[in-house]
Amino acid sequence: MAKKNKTTEKVNATTLAKKQREISIAEFFTKNRHLLGFDSPRRALLTTVKEGVDNSLDACEEAGILPELKIRISLVDGFDDRYRVEIEDNGPGILAKQIPNIFAKLLYGSKFHRLKMSRGQQGMGISAAGMYGQLTTGMPIRITSKPDVKKPAHYYELLIDTKKNEPKTIHREDVEWNEHTGTRVTIDLEAEYRRGQRSVEEYLLQTSIANPHVQVTYLPPEGAQMIFPRITEEMPADPREIKPHPYGVELGMLMKMAEATKARNLKTFLRRDFTRVSERVAGEICEAAALKPTLRPSRIDREAAGKLFRAIKQVKINNPPTDCVCPIGEELILKSLKKIVEAEFYTSVSRSPAVYRGNPFLVEAGIAYGIKGYEAEKQARMVRLANRVPLLHQQAACAITKSIGSIGWRGYGLNQPNGSLPIGPMLLMVHVASVWVPFTSESKEAIAHYPEIIKEIRLALQECGRKLGTHLRRKKRAAEETRKRAYMEKYIPHIGIALKDILTLDDKQEQRVVERLTGVLERSRKG
Amino acid sequence: MAKKNKTTEKVNATTLAKKQREISIAEFFTKNRHLLGFDSPRRALLTTVKEGVDNSLDACEEAGILPELKIRISLVDGFDDRYRVEIEDNGPGILAKQIPNIFAKLLYGSKFHRLKMSRGQQGMGISAAGMYGQLTTGMPIRITSKPDVKKPAHYYELLIDTKKNEPKTIHREDVEWNEHTGTRVTIDLEAEYRRGQRSVEEYLLQTSIANPHVQVTYLPPEGAQMIFPRITEEMPADPREIKPHPYGVELGMLMKMAEATKARNLKTFLRRDFTRVSERVAGEICEAAALKPTLRPSRIDREAAGKLFRAIKQVKINNPPTDCVCPIGEELILKSLKKIVEAEFYTSVSRSPAVYRGNPFLVEAGIAYGIKGYEAEKQARMVRLANRVPLLHQQAACAITKSIGSIGWRGYGLNQPNGSLPIGPMLLMVHVASVWVPFTSESKEAIAHYPEIIKEIRLALQECGRKLGTHLRRKKRAAEETRKRAYMEKYIPHIGIALKDILTLDDKQEQRVVERLTGVLERSRKG
Repeated sequence: MAKKNKTTEKVNATTLAKKQREISIAEFFTKNRHLLGFDSPRRALLTTVKEGVDNSLDACEEAGILPELKIRISLVDGFDDRYRVEIEDNGPGILAKQIPNIFAKLLYGSKFHRLKMSRGQQGMGISAAGMYGQLTTGMPIRITSKPDVKKPAHYYELLIDTKKNEPKTIHREDVEWNEHTGTRVTIDLEAEYRRGQRSVEEYLLQTSIANPHVQVTYLPPEGAQMIFPRITEEMPADPREIKPHPYGVELGMLMKMAEATKARNLKTFLRRDFTRVSERVAGEICEAAALKPTLRPSRIDREAAGKLFRAIKQVKINNPPTDCVCPIGEELILKSLKKIVEAEFYTSVSRSPAVYRGNPFLVEAGIAYGIKGYEAEKQARMVRLANRVPLLHQQAACAITKSIGSIGWRGYGLNQPNGSLPIGPMLLMVHVASVWVPFTSESKEAIAHYPEIIKEIRLALQECGRKLGTHLRRKKRAAEETRKRAYMEKYIPHIGIALKDILTLDDKQEQRVVERLTGVLERSRKG
Repeated sequence: MAKKNKTTEKVNATTLAKKQREISIAEFFTKNRHLLGFDSPRRALLTTVKEGVDNSLDACEEAGILPELKIRISLVDGFDDRYRVEIEDNGPGILAKQIPNIFAKLLYGSKFHRLKMSRGQQGMGISAAGMYGQLTTGMPIRITSKPDVKKPAHYYELLIDTKKNEPKTIHREDVEWNEHTGTRVTIDLEAEYRRGQRSVEEYLLQTSIANPHVQVTYLPPEGAQMIFPRITEEMPADPREIKPHPYGVELGMLMKMAEATKARNLKTFLRRDFTRVSERVAGEICEAAALKPTLRPSRIDREAAGKLFRAIKQVKINNPPTDCVCPIGEELILKSLKKIVEAEFYTSVSRSPAVYRGNPFLVEAGIAYGIKGYEAEKQARMVRLANRVPLLHQQAACAITKSIGSIGWRGYGLNQPNGSLPIGPMLLMVHVASVWVPFTSESKEAIAHYPEIIKEIRLALQECGRKLGTHLRRKKRAAEETRKRAYMEKYIPHIGIALKDILTLDDKQEQRVVERLTGVLERSRKG
């Protein structure tokens, strides 16, 4: 104890200062890798595939190329807990000088600094997958990419220097590869391969529901190759990038934007750097803030920014434009559902865009009911999608799950344990698309509980639910009818025989009585 | 549409490359600030207080000073949604040159790169609070700190340059302040003040349960000053910093450690840089890996590291030392509980340390039952603590909640709805202490579901539960006895009167009969 006290006495501001150090974001996520979806070997495998697929699909679509993906998972020789994941696309390829940063530096990318609907958001995923591979196997991430059809492809082997969060190229060369442009990523990692729920198969199947224009070939570590074919040759609409909406911007952000703007005066700044601010609206904001429209943006200090911020709230500004979020569409949702399950009933709905915190978003839903091979007494299966990406983990934390549970499914003819999913041989699909999907963690597995989002999900599901209810009632009536008809067909002849005995009828008379009785009962049943 | 296609055609690897940019960690968390606990104005207030208090307590304890904190929350003049939070401590103070980085740079600190039990872990919290303040009010974070009693204090006003994640000092001066060392932090932020559950009051109350050596004075925005007095003058034991345990180290980490070590050969590297590796164990590892003990660590390539990694798993290595995690202690838990609630029964247990993924941890639990003012038909209240810090949010996601729900409380005489908290006028306290607490998110509000941790929590609670069960049974028996005695006292005299009539006894005889009957019944009841 004496020793301890001695040590304690020596600690003061100077000794404490010596221990202070910068922490790189890569070190941070190495230690906290569960935040990125790498908390178990099984989940690590899925997350790796997912990050690769997200990037490939975004790149293809931005370049207007119908995506064709090849995914291959195989055991690494000599190991039973180490897998090699290869993801290859026919996208536009990546320039050589960009490859190291994109694949071996966390928080580097093209999607963070814009408001546009895309699968990737943070510039973190694929580098995190490479980093996990490096951490568990020591192996570099390997990239082959061909941005120019007339030149050879670039091949890179990269490690990430976690202390600095910088890429380290350990090998590079030019290689002959393919006739078309594209990119292939190879990562070795400690992993566990399993089929079933939350497996890579399940993920790819759901990806193909959400992306009917995508073709995926999958070679699993065991068993035969699988193909998820595209069901449309049409590319989804190209979502538009938008500027921030004034209602969604906070004071600090407003100050930062004023500092960074190229506009020469306040009015132009408001008009050019925000969405939905017309000449007139900009004038109204200046007036409400008691600031001159000609004020130079560099002169906007904290006080002026504060006035501006409060003025924005007082002026009526239209909702942001909504062509920046692109739906899958009711028709393609139906087609997709029909492709993956054989059911007695399908329905889908695609709602108009709405807005949360200044960000446009849109909800779609689909139901397949009476699915062959699904048990009637089990809870409905769920397909949760965010910007066309399936969410397989953290179901309980997701706004979609909460919304489904909050609906009274009994009203539509289904059983439902208190506040949870309805019971039945069915699939419930919900897609949330937005320029910025608010996830509950960096691993992007659950949507945060924004009231506006929950409301829209409920409305979409209720619309589907009503149609399902109508179907189920009709089905029940038809079943009832069949049952009654069966009764009649069974008993009326016996009544005939009895009457024949009692009234001593001949065969002809008996037949006539039976026919009449049938007619009378038939009419009364229908009436 | 024609226009859109035109745009699409132009997109290729070169245009995509132009959009690629680095994202600073500060920009990342500005956009994702819900990950740090700033998702609503109400929660932002609590998180800000919490981060300040965590830092103050850590600093005081490292310097061996009994902590004395002053916290003041007030409305900022002219606003109804903007508060000023001031947190002042009597800690060792901070050197001037360290102040900007500590308070206006994310991921900077002394606690990340070590394995030692402390409240802070990431070097993120207080800068994040300052950044949120700046974002919502434009105001800088203000620091006054005095590391040297003989010199004036340093005063700083800091903004964070979110684009670079670097501090910007906008004002500094020397000021006269206090007689002793210490630090004061002032943050203005958009916030909402409320009392009750998950309030600052609740947080400070729980902090004082978990830290009986801390004295806190709190001045809320409305109402009178509150004092949470210390109940012990003794500092908690100073937790020891440990080196990583070989079983908890992954291949990539092993390679990094070999690269960074100062040891001249493999055997020394193993002995010096890890905990629990003796001369003998180091030798066994070298042998199992078929590597020379004299190998220079810089020569350890991927292949050699792989051998070493597999060899470690084959060698028997003792669990890490456990004096690196310090309990509150059974006695102080009881004292704390008695300080905050008046109850009929108290119990506490402090378990021996255990290990998850190479990290030592320890669980403590306490129960107060029959609390005055608590409703008997409501669920038990919970106090969740991690390294002496109360966790108020994300209750459903926490390993503590899961553990409580998984115990059969009916066995201890309590009602319990299926899998949830038991019912009763009671408080359940659980403390998890570790050199590295695995939280489910950066906001550090819930403990991840490691099976080893859940098991220890269950064992601690079951031990408390059994004692509570004994108390409740004894109480039930005593109640039964009282009831029976009351019956007797009521009816025996009537029997006496009846017998007097029937047998024509005199008063004396009657009295004797009553006494005898009472004796007989008393004996039979006890027997």
